[in-house]
Amino acid sequence: MSRVDNNLSSIVEEIADEMKSRPDRGDVATYIPELANVDPDCFGLTVIDAHGEVFSGGDSDMAFSIQSISKVFTLTLALGIVGDRLWRRVGREPSGNPFNSIVQLEMERGVPRNPFINAGAIAVTDVLVSGHQPREALGQIVRFMQFLADDASIGIDHAVAASEKRTGFRNTALANYMKSFDVIENLVDFTLGVYFHHCAIAMTCRQLAMAGRYLAHSGRNPTTGLSVVSPERARRINALMLTCGHYDGSGEFAYRVGLPGKSGVGGGIFAIAPGKASIAVWSPGLDKSGNSHLGRIALEKLTKRTGWSIFGA
Amino acid sequence: MSRVDNNLSSIVEEIADEMKSRPDRGDVATYIPELANVDPDCFGLTVIDAHGEVFSGGDSDMAFSIQSISKVFTLTLALGIVGDRLWRRVGREPSGNPFNSIVQLEMERGVPRNPFINAGAIAVTDVLVSGHQPREALGQIVRFMQFLADDASIGIDHAVAASEKRTGFRNTALANYMKSFDVIENLVDFTLGVYFHHCAIAMTCRQLAMAGRYLAHSGRNPTTGLSVVSPERARRINALMLTCGHYDGSGEFAYRVGLPGKSGVGGGIFAIAPGKASIAVWSPGLDKSGNSHLGRIALEKLTKRTGWSIFGA
Amino acid sequence: MSRVDNNLSSIVEEIADEMKSRPDRGDVATYIPELANVDPDCFGLTVIDAHGEVFSGGDSDMAFSIQSISKVFTLTLALGIVGDRLWRRVGREPSGNPFNSIVQLEMERGVPRNPFINAGAIAVTDVLVSGHQPREALGQIVRFMQFLADDASIGIDHAVAASEKRTGFRNTALANYMKSFDVIENLVDFTLGVYFHHCAIAMTCRQLAMAGRYLAHSGRNPTTGLSVVSPERARRINALMLTCGHYDGSGEFAYRVGLPGKSGVGGGIFAIAPGKASIAVWSPGLDKSGNSHLGRIALEKLTKRTGWSIFGA
Amino acid sequence: MSRVDNNLSSIVEEIADEMKSRPDRGDVATYIPELANVDPDCFGLTVIDAHGEVFSGGDSDMAFSIQSISKVFTLTLALGIVGDRLWRRVGREPSGNPFNSIVQLEMERGVPRNPFINAGAIAVTDVLVSGHQPREALGQIVRFMQFLADDASIGIDHAVAASEKRTGFRNTALANYMKSFDVIENLVDFTLGVYFHHCAIAMTCRQLAMAGRYLAHSGRNPTTGLSVVSPERARRINALMLTCGHYDGSGEFAYRVGLPGKSGVGGGIFAIAPGKASIAVWSPGLDKSGNSHLGRIALEKLTKRTGWSIFGA
Repeated sequence: MSRVDNNLSSIVEEIADEMKSRPDRGDVATYIPELANVDPDCFGLTVIDAHGEVFSGGDSDMAFSIQSISKVFTLTLALGIVGDRLWRRVGREPSGNPFNSIVQLEMERGVPRNPFINAGAIAVTDVLVSGHQPREALGQIVRFMQFLADDASIGIDHAVAASEKRTGFRNTALANYMKSFDVIENLVDFTLGVYFHHCAIAMTCRQLAMAGRYLAHSGRNPTTGLSVVSPERARRINALMLTCGHYDGSGEFAYRVGLPGKSGVGGGIFAIAPGKASIAVWSPGLDKSGNSHLGRIALEKLTKRTGWSIFGA
Repeated sequence: MSRVDNNLSSIVEEIADEMKSRPDRGDVATYIPELANVDPDCFGLTVIDAHGEVFSGGDSDMAFSIQSISKVFTLTLALGIVGDRLWRRVGREPSGNPFNSIVQLEMERGVPRNPFINAGAIAVTDVLVSGHQPREALGQIVRFMQFLADDASIGIDHAVAASEKRTGFRNTALANYMKSFDVIENLVDFTLGVYFHHCAIAMTCRQLAMAGRYLAHSGRNPTTGLSVVSPERARRINALMLTCGHYDGSGEFAYRVGLPGKSGVGGGIFAIAPGKASIAVWSPGLDKSGNSHLGRIALEKLTKRTGWSIFGA
Repeated sequence: MSRVDNNLSSIVEEIADEMKSRPDRGDVATYIPELANVDPDCFGLTVIDAHGEVFSGGDSDMAFSIQSISKVFTLTLALGIVGDRLWRRVGREPSGNPFNSIVQLEMERGVPRNPFINAGAIAVTDVLVSGHQPREALGQIVRFMQFLADDASIGIDHAVAASEKRTGFRNTALANYMKSFDVIENLVDFTLGVYFHHCAIAMTCRQLAMAGRYLAHSGRNPTTGLSVVSPERARRINALMLTCGHYDGSGEFAYRVGLPGKSGVGGGIFAIAPGKASIAVWSPGLDKSGNSHLGRIALEKLTKRTGWSIFGA
Repeated sequence: MSRVDNNLSSIVEEIADEMKSRPDRGDVATYIPELANVDPDCFGLTVIDAHGEVFSGGDSDMAFSIQSISKVFTLTLALGIVGDRLWRRVGREPSGNPFNSIVQLEMERGVPRNPFINAGAIAVTDVLVSGHQPREALGQIVRFMQFLADDASIGIDHAVAASEKRTGFRNTALANYMKSFDVIENLVDFTLGVYFHHCAIAMTCRQLAMAGRYLAHSGRNPTTGLSVVSPERARRINALMLTCGHYDGSGEFAYRVGLPGKSGVGGGIFAIAPGKASIAVWSPGLDKSGNSHLGRIALEKLTKRTGWSIFGA
């Protein structure tokens, strides 16, 4: 059995200190121009344990663009609205490799492989748009994040949203392609508009770790006692994060870190240790799979020192 | 939190009884002619807890062809021999969809995506063959299974091995394809011969659950205290089982069952609950992804009643 | 050597009569709603020989939507503007199968395989849009068709163009996908707008056969003597029509008909017999590859009776 | 009309002289070790006109490995045996890109796209093996080549055949893969053995041009009057050569040369000008698509000077 160091406070600080000074920092995403301006030296880490105690290190109170991490929360919302009918429009299997996004859409007639690849997340967003004006649908998502994090200051970085909209030709291609198979119900521009904006939500590590506590604790916030989803649904969202949460680096993340998590190209990673902690880490430099380079290393160190891997001590 | 019923004995019995009588049993694999002869009414289940106590139900002492489950053990052996150099020849990512086996081999120049798809398992077997006669390599694998299960009666069903060899054109294609990229070092016939034979190892649920206990308990048998692999390697093999252990039904298995596991087309599934139990289930009828239909349902019921899901209570 | 019947007039009439009454007529395209309204009983055929003599049968003076046949003429125009630089943006190889359109775009970084698949034709249209307002670019294309056919009455069916624009999600996907690789220079909406409109040009068989005479006669109209392209360029456009002109039925068309040609989902086919004739045929019902069912059969009969196959007498 | 220079004798000589001395010679194939030993400075060209007059230049009497060019003749034989039933086992469409060989086999359930890609040619060879011992089947092929070329000295280069057999893992993969779909009827080793050997037939340019005269002249040798196939079948084989004869460089060959032809990795190209000539060219260096670099250039010069392009003067 691996030695477990329970002094979370010092673990978090030591990891943050080490990460702040490492020379290997990955490459900041450039395909969304606004994201390219972020300082690659940033590093933040927040761990919130089962008692609600918050352990933070580094730039844990700097807001960053959560990008694809938002997909965990839009999935939670969409499941609340349509339940298991969601799975008619999106699958639950890992996507395999980067080519698959669109190759697979062609073979499987417009049904994306899982809700965490871009195509799948656009299909999930489309569920939230149905019956609403885009502005309303987006408001609902933002208020959900504010509610979960108990922080009304959370909002959208409109410069990032506009930047993504101007350059998001590939996502526009995916959405139109799904529309050609009737997998998208609403106007492509409406659904994409909401998608680009919820990806542009800005949050700090602290806010993000707070917002995701329900997934670490059987679907509810253990401090307030408020239930967000059923225990079974929380487990299932966690299973999806484990198998599909890191693009084509999902296997690698499970292998090295051993926690369910979701990354975003803004450099953030949200992860949970079931029953133990909700975790958010941020470092803008990415590895070749598009996941935060130091974020992943920090989480690997964290699970080693805490023994939190879901795959055994 | 879900209610956990700790009376394992009655849980196992009740599940086995229910499964024995269910009318929906899936379809017995026909592509290996010998496997088509197995009685679809069979159902066996064995759970061995951390104290070594054995709970069994149904046909848990009937031997079946473990098929792809053997890949967990050949992976363990190969990692023991070449360590992380193994990953030069095989990846660690889910394969996405059934087409990928060979499409992906073409795109990634003969390197299979993970050690649990057929191509990857053949590459792993090739490691075991290097420096040996095929007969020796095979003997080593069988003795490893006997050692792990503490049962010298475990052996190979030669009729199944011969049947697979006669009809294994697709595996022969995969092996030759990898050979064309120099991913296979030995004579294709040698490596395939060993592969077909270790897939034809016959074991009971009881033997299989016993053999796999090291993966549930940080790399060692908690009863004998003998260490098989390091705790880190055990966690990593478990992570691979979770993300890649059930062909293109791996996401579904994680979503519904929430345990690392490996299935075989003989209808067996091996799974572990970290720190808690080693589990083997067998029912010959398969679902459309090639995994045991009732085996998966039985494990889903087991994790629900025990609260063993690695994704939360 | 096959017997050649030089009485073109009776050959054309007999083929048209037989085709008008055949019960097997294929299926009218439904994916562009406006096209679904066309009467499947229509059949027209025009052959113009080297002396400019016109032989027509059936509904050769009814206008139909030329759709993809327009790609031959936009290619001619684009080569006139940018010459061989065009081939930096589009390839010259057959596309293989219907899946390839988008799979291949992914593998080859947004460069379409040839100018006659949709993606390639959109890239060609983009060349015509550069430096112009969409309306100007479209005007240039229409005037080119009027000039070639010596008929100022040729125009666009705006109902078809609007219908295609409303439902052209797949083409919108392709264009955005290429834009993400910088293969499209102009605003996607501009280039697609021109594309949808030039596909909606309406012409009769007589007009179409007249317009394409330059390809049958070394790049120039043998009656007026006006040169449209060089002899080498005419040969090369013909080669592209032969290898790529009929989607994934191009091999079949070469095998059965043996003439360079280009089909459209409106049911038209334009073909040439080098040095001998310019041909247009129209019947709205399509085969499974999207080519006119009776159009192809009529051309097969025509080449058999005339001995015009480019592959030998 | 382009100016045609009828002095074939001087054209052939001038082209051969120029090619002998050009510095750009492509790269000799290395994947079959025996082929790597061929002198890259070799160049041979033979043209036989409709009267049977032979025009040769360079090393036109040196034998080379015809490799894939043999597929034209095995296709002719197989069509003679099973007729159009052949098309149940192999398609008639271009294969698109190099990836397609095996990807496409997976999607289309083991039916190769055309008889000139390796998989398709193996399926054609399988037809010739059925009902025979491999040795007999091979004898039949060799005697057919001897008959067509009227030269009993034509034989197999056994060193090349053995070399290909030792290293032909990819072809072994393809054959086993098709066997798994029942597209191959005979023992894989038998069919592959015959395939490897007929690819290793050695011929000179003169012999090859002689052997293929029937394809230039409506299915029969115009000098002896002996009919090999019907005019329609000759045209159809020519159409297949045009659309599929040069791997994924088929479109390029049609575009630049404009003649039906078939290349081999030994550096030979066989081509015909319908009604006019049978042509063989050989230069061992290949371009990136695997076709003879100088061979293609020589043919491009030949069609320019003779006006023989099937796509117009």
